[in-house]
Amino acid sequence: MVKLIECVPNFSEGRRADVIEAIVKPFKETKGCYLLDYRADPDHNRLVVSLVGEPEALEESLIKSAKVAIENIDLNKHQGAHPRIGAVDVIPFVPLRNTTMEECVEFSRKFAQLFHDETKVPVYFYEESALRPERRNLEVIRKGQYEVLKEEIIKPERHPDIGEPKLHPTAGATVIGARKFLVAFNVNLHTQDVNIAKAIAKAIRSSSGGFSAVKAIGLELKERGMTQVSMNIVDYEKNALYRVLELIKAEAKRWGISIAETEVYGMVPAAALLESTSYYMQIADFDPNQVIELRLLDLLGRD
Amino acid sequence: MVKLIECVPNFSEGRRADVIEAIVKPFKETKGCYLLDYRADPDHNRLVVSLVGEPEALEESLIKSAKVAIENIDLNKHQGAHPRIGAVDVIPFVPLRNTTMEECVEFSRKFAQLFHDETKVPVYFYEESALRPERRNLEVIRKGQYEVLKEEIIKPERHPDIGEPKLHPTAGATVIGARKFLVAFNVNLHTQDVNIAKAIAKAIRSSSGGFSAVKAIGLELKERGMTQVSMNIVDYEKNALYRVLELIKAEAKRWGISIAETEVYGMVPAAALLESTSYYMQIADFDPNQVIELRLLDLLGRD
Repeated sequence: MVKLIECVPNFSEGRRADVIEAIVKPFKETKGCYLLDYRADPDHNRLVVSLVGEPEALEESLIKSAKVAIENIDLNKHQGAHPRIGAVDVIPFVPLRNTTMEECVEFSRKFAQLFHDETKVPVYFYEESALRPERRNLEVIRKGQYEVLKEEIIKPERHPDIGEPKLHPTAGATVIGARKFLVAFNVNLHTQDVNIAKAIAKAIRSSSGGFSAVKAIGLELKERGMTQVSMNIVDYEKNALYRVLELIKAEAKRWGISIAETEVYGMVPAAALLESTSYYMQIADFDPNQVIELRLLDLLGRD
Repeated sequence: MVKLIECVPNFSEGRRADVIEAIVKPFKETKGCYLLDYRADPDHNRLVVSLVGEPEALEESLIKSAKVAIENIDLNKHQGAHPRIGAVDVIPFVPLRNTTMEECVEFSRKFAQLFHDETKVPVYFYEESALRPERRNLEVIRKGQYEVLKEEIIKPERHPDIGEPKLHPTAGATVIGARKFLVAFNVNLHTQDVNIAKAIAKAIRSSSGGFSAVKAIGLELKERGMTQVSMNIVDYEKNALYRVLELIKAEAKRWGISIAETEVYGMVPAAALLESTSYYMQIADFDPNQVIELRLLDLLGRD
């Protein structure tokens, strides 16, 4: 069965349409690589690509694409609202189908070496691929961004994991690693009081003692007369969506308010939803391979 | 995007392993045809195949497979518990992906003509492809089975839709048509009183005034100390699973009993579950193409 990995590379270019198209071209043209989406943000001056592929196809297209980015982007002249340390800023790999996290970590390490050999850009490993525990956290690696890292890279605690301790003169450094699929899940509340949304967010998020895989903030949705608990579920297997939703409902009762609606933002793996379907519908022993489209995905990939 | 049709052909052979394997072979070997499952039942003396394919691939493999069945099965000698009129008894086509019901009906008509030209077996159209309203119902066409139809086919009301009014001397006739995906959904009740399961089944099924697309019976599950409302949902778009489940819960309250668990039996299309997920999780404006595997299915099919 075909092994599929999701990859969400972030490039430091969100303004020049010709460069953006040139970066994305290999993802459109490589067999076995499937471009789901790409969004360039001029304020962030950043391009976020969403693609899925078989390991070899990802490797091939990412190297081609990275070379285009490195040729065209000079971090010494780059300005944008989003933190960054490199032309190819971050390359996360996510195990999607018939691939374990261990295989994905191994793939990220092998890819990173190839990437460095081909581009001479130093690499930091993050998330599940981190070689130093503090580097699991992207923000630790990106601290001070390109401008500060350029000076501090000579310090042992900021040495890259692959390559000499100095940045590429124009393309900086690249962060590579394997991580879980991130689900963006929002719950809109029937209240205009943002303090309630903030209190609920605090109750459920990891940083204040809530679910270990949930990041959450409380927001106003002024034009809709609602507030929102806006979340990233960083491990939907540990913290199932239904469980997070039910706890939010329980917390909301404290203020006598109810849920207006929820939003699943962007892409979501079938399993993240089916686990909640099974809960609410009390489906016993449900096997995702009973879903005809999931069976077909494996069968089609076989050709 | 690749058009995918599901097909569940039923053959009147459930005992001879060599014949069964020969019938199934074209489904395994035809490019663009994906064999999901096949089950032979010796008591029924019947083979039920579940496959998905692009229209041309289905046509090609079904004709090959039908020829094998027709060569090897003689209805004059056939015995089995399941009603049948032909060696290739029924061929239903189900629109699965990027295909409408109208296209599927058209495909069934075109296929049926080719099938008749190649095999000389007369064809009856049923379900959505029926040319006479009473023939939407398979049991009307199959009334009295092969033995009775052999005599009655000369009557105008039993004339086939394609072919002369006489059965193929050994292979009988074949029923062909387009229908919706059938979901087998069971709800197990925390009661041993089968009368309650029967009363609930009666309240919700079409034949006694319930949901128009639900067939239901009440059963005992003796070894488990439960009873079951066993259902076929013949149109899950009209009668969403969550709505059926919630009505069963409401009915169960009349006797003060609760739902032990539910079962989705066999294959189910993603949309049948996602509609219920959206209901229970109050997900607003959910687009099934946000499910990464469903997007991928279209992208993979494109190669």
